[in-house]
Amino acid sequence: MAQDKSARRPRAETPKGFRDYFGAEVAERKTMLDRVAEVYQRYGFDPLETSAVETVEALGKFLPDVDRPNEGVFAWQDEDQDWLALRYDLTAPLARVAAQFRNDLPNPYRRYAMGPVWRNEKPGPGRFRQFYQCDADTVGAPSVAADAEICAMLSDALEAVGIPRGDYVVKVNSRKVLNGVMEVAGVLDPANPERFHAERGIVLRAIDKIDRLGEAGVRALLGEGRRDESGDFTRGAGLSAEQAEVVMGFTSARRDSGAGTIARLRELVGASVIGAEGVAELQTMAELLDRQGYGADRLILDPGVVRGLGYYTGPVFEAELTFEILDEKGRKRQFGSVAGGGRYDDLVKRFTGQAVPATGVSIGVDRLLAALRAKGRVGAEMPGPVVVTVMDRDRMGDYLAMAGELRAAGVRAEVYLGNPKNFGNQLKYADKRASPLAVIQGGDEAARGTVILKDLILGARIAESATLEEWKDRPAQVEVPRGDLVAAVRRMLAR
Amino acid sequence: MAQDKSARRPRAETPKGFRDYFGAEVAERKTMLDRVAEVYQRYGFDPLETSAVETVEALGKFLPDVDRPNEGVFAWQDEDQDWLALRYDLTAPLARVAAQFRNDLPNPYRRYAMGPVWRNEKPGPGRFRQFYQCDADTVGAPSVAADAEICAMLSDALEAVGIPRGDYVVKVNSRKVLNGVMEVAGVLDPANPERFHAERGIVLRAIDKIDRLGEAGVRALLGEGRRDESGDFTRGAGLSAEQAEVVMGFTSARRDSGAGTIARLRELVGASVIGAEGVAELQTMAELLDRQGYGADRLILDPGVVRGLGYYTGPVFEAELTFEILDEKGRKRQFGSVAGGGRYDDLVKRFTGQAVPATGVSIGVDRLLAALRAKGRVGAEMPGPVVVTVMDRDRMGDYLAMAGELRAAGVRAEVYLGNPKNFGNQLKYADKRASPLAVIQGGDEAARGTVILKDLILGARIAESATLEEWKDRPAQVEVPRGDLVAAVRRMLAR
Repeated sequence: MAQDKSARRPRAETPKGFRDYFGAEVAERKTMLDRVAEVYQRYGFDPLETSAVETVEALGKFLPDVDRPNEGVFAWQDEDQDWLALRYDLTAPLARVAAQFRNDLPNPYRRYAMGPVWRNEKPGPGRFRQFYQCDADTVGAPSVAADAEICAMLSDALEAVGIPRGDYVVKVNSRKVLNGVMEVAGVLDPANPERFHAERGIVLRAIDKIDRLGEAGVRALLGEGRRDESGDFTRGAGLSAEQAEVVMGFTSARRDSGAGTIARLRELVGASVIGAEGVAELQTMAELLDRQGYGADRLILDPGVVRGLGYYTGPVFEAELTFEILDEKGRKRQFGSVAGGGRYDDLVKRFTGQAVPATGVSIGVDRLLAALRAKGRVGAEMPGPVVVTVMDRDRMGDYLAMAGELRAAGVRAEVYLGNPKNFGNQLKYADKRASPLAVIQGGDEAARGTVILKDLILGARIAESATLEEWKDRPAQVEVPRGDLVAAVRRMLAR
Repeated sequence: MAQDKSARRPRAETPKGFRDYFGAEVAERKTMLDRVAEVYQRYGFDPLETSAVETVEALGKFLPDVDRPNEGVFAWQDEDQDWLALRYDLTAPLARVAAQFRNDLPNPYRRYAMGPVWRNEKPGPGRFRQFYQCDADTVGAPSVAADAEICAMLSDALEAVGIPRGDYVVKVNSRKVLNGVMEVAGVLDPANPERFHAERGIVLRAIDKIDRLGEAGVRALLGEGRRDESGDFTRGAGLSAEQAEVVMGFTSARRDSGAGTIARLRELVGASVIGAEGVAELQTMAELLDRQGYGADRLILDPGVVRGLGYYTGPVFEAELTFEILDEKGRKRQFGSVAGGGRYDDLVKRFTGQAVPATGVSIGVDRLLAALRAKGRVGAEMPGPVVVTVMDRDRMGDYLAMAGELRAAGVRAEVYLGNPKNFGNQLKYADKRASPLAVIQGGDEAARGTVILKDLILGARIAESATLEEWKDRPAQVEVPRGDLVAAVRRMLAR
C-alpha cells in the first residue's frame, strides 16, 4: 500500500529536452538582451511580441531541416479540430503579422522580437526543445540599404553586449550570386526556375556544412553522395566533376580585399543576369557600409557563407566570433557563428499572394551568452544580498527593520527566514546566497545598541589563505552602532 | 482554378483568443516589470525562468475553476505518449522546481518569475488565452514574517511602478481564521478534516464573489443555492440560516482599526484552535509590518478577502487599487484588485511527500498596466525616431551616414527605406512612426552643405491650430549647416 501511494506521486521533472534557468542565468541573458534591444531601438526598430501559439497553417513548413517538414513542432488540435502549434522561430510569426496588419503597420516596418521558440526535435547535450531567439527584421524595404543597415546594426549590437571590435566579423554573401554560379554550372535554368530545385537545395546545404565536412566532404555531396563515419549515406546533387568545380570555385572566391572578391565573383557568374545582379548588390552594400565606417575590420564579403535556410533570396550574412576557445577535447578553435540572416522576399506572399521584400537577422542567444561567458563579460549582474541573521526570534521586527533600512538605501538585503535555531545554518545559507556580508545582533549587541557586520567574502578568503596583514588591514568582523548600520554596510560593500 | 489557388493560402490570423503586442505595448510592460523586478531583487529574491512546457502530471489540477479540473490547459502527447502541457500559472512550476532541486536551492528559497501563462478557456473581450503573470514566492519559510515580507514588497512594488500611496491598499486575511469560523459554524470538524470539504469549497468561492454578488447572493450560495439572471442555478453549501449568519459575520468583521478587527475575529472564532492560531498570526503580521512603517495607509486586515484558490492554508492577501475609474457603462467604480496571494503549504508535498511551507504573490500584469494607463503613468517609454528622408536615391550613403551620426549621439534615428519617389509618402511614414523630426537634404541643400530639419510635432499642431506667435517663436522648419546636424537635432528635440 505504501508503495502504491508513493507511485502515485508526480515526478518532479521538466519534460525531456526542457530546462529551467536560475538567478544569474536569467539576469545575464536579460542584461545582454536589454543591450541588444537598446541598439535595435536606436535604429528605429520597434518591439513586437507575438503569441507563442500559432495555427499550423500560418506557421508553414520552413524549418531548416527540410528532410522532416511535418515534424519539428509541438502541435495539438483545438476545440474546433484546427491544428495549433508553438512557434519554432520568430520569422514565421512576423510574416503572419506583416500580412494580418499590412494596412496598419508603417511601411517599411522595422521590428525586433526576443523570446523563446520551441522545436520538437531530439534533445541532446546543450540542445534544448525551448530556447531564445532575438531577431530584427525590416519588412517592405526592397533596397539593399536595408540589408546593409541590418549588418551595421548587428555589428553595433555585438559591440554593445561586450564583444570587442576585432573579435568578430560580419560575413556577407548573396544567394543571387550563388544562383548565378549555379546557372553557370548548369543547375539553374532561368527559363524554368523550378528545374533542378532539389539539386540546388543539396548544393546549398553541402556548402553550408563546409566548415564541418571539409572540401572533400562537400565535393562528395555535390557529386554522387557521401558516406559518413557511421556508415550512413547522404545522396548528393549528382553534379559532374566540372560542375562541382564551378561551385567549389565559388566557395573559395574570397580575396584579400572586398574589391578583389567582387572582381572574382564577377568572373565566376559570367553571363548570368541574376548573378550579375547579386554582384552589383554586394558592391552597393559594401559601399554603403564603408561610407558609414563599417570597414573590413568589421564586415567582409565571404562567398563561403550561404546559410542553411532555403527561403533566402538575396544578401545573406553571418556574424562569426573570431577569438579562440578550447573545444571539449581541449583543442583550440574559433568560437564561430552567433548570428545570421538574410533577405527573404517570399514569406509574406504565402498569405497575401503579393511579394513583400524583407530582410533580417537572428541572434543565437545561448551561443552569444556562451561567448560572453568565455570572454568573462558576464557575472556582475546580481550581487548576493546582505543577510540579516536572526539571533533572537522574538526580535524579528528589529531584523526586518534593519533589512528594510538597507533596502531603502538601495542595498540588496534580506532577513534569514528559515528556522533560526542553528546559527551555523544561517551562515551556510548566507554562503549559498553568495552574500557579501552578514548582519548579526544578539542580546548583548542589542543591549549595547550595536550590530556586528561580518565580511563573508574576506571570511572565506581568510579561511583559505589570507595573510595576517590582510586580516589586520580589513577585519572580517566589526561592531558598529545600530544607527550606523547603513553607512557601515555601504562602506564595507564599497571597499 | 484561381479560386482554388487562393483557397489554399493560409489565413494570416492568430488563433482564437491569442493576440500580438506592438511597440509601446511591449515597452510599457517591460518598463513596469523591470521596476517590479528591481524591488524583488532588492528584497533578495532571485529570478527563475522555468520552461513553458511541463508534464501534465507535474502541473496537477490547481486551476481556480474547480468545476473543470481536467480542462483549462493546452496539452498534447509526446513521442513516448506522455502528456505535456503549457503552464497555466507560475506557482505549479515553482512547486516542481522546489521539489526537483530541493538539495541545491538555498533554503528558504526566494524567487520571482515573470512570463506568459496559457489557459485553454473560452476567450472573451479582454480575456486572452495567453497572458503575463509576475510572481514572487518564498519556499521553506514557515514564519509569518515571510508573509509579512511579501506584503511589504508588494506595496513597494506598486509604488515603484507608479501607483502612489493612498491609491492602493494591501488587504490581509487568514484562511485559518476562516476555518475557525467554519468550525464554529459546524462545517469543519477538526477530528475529521476531510468532512464537509465540498461545502467549505462552496463557502470559500461564495465569499470570494461578494463584491459581484452582494450579500444576498452570497447568502443564497451559503444556503440552498442561487439562480442568476440567465436562469442558471448554482448549488449552495446547504448551510442553515444560523450557520450562514456566522459566516456572514466573518465577512463583515472588519473594524476601523487593526486592533478592533483582531478583537472581533477573536470573538468569532471562539474556542476553535485553528481559528485562534490564525488570529495570532494576523496579529504578528500586523505588528511586524507596523514596526517597518507599513501602517493602515498601506496595509489593512480585511476578513472580506479570501481569494478563490483552494490551496491556501494561512494568510491570504490582495492588493486593491482604490482610485475610481469609469466602467464600460460610464459609472464610477473603484479600479479593484491587481494582485493577490497567500500561504500554501502543501503544493511541494505533492511531489516529495514532505510538507514544505510556502507563500507568495502574483501580480496581474495586464490589470496593473491598465491601471497605470488610467493614471497616465505610461507612454514615454519609446519616442518615435528621427526620420532621415531620401530626396536623391543615389545619395543613400549620405543619408545612412546622417542617421548613423545621430544614433552615435544617442538619438533614435532611421533612414526612410521604402520607395523614395513620392516625398509625401515619406512624411506620411514619419507621421505613422510618431517621428518628432524629419531630416531633409535635396540637391540644393547638398550643394550648399546644409540640411533642413522639419519639426513634425509643431507641424501637426500648426496644421491644426497654432497661432502666428507660436509659429514665429518656434519655426517648424530650419536649415542648418550639415556639420551642425547632430547639435541642431538635439536642440530641437530638447525644446
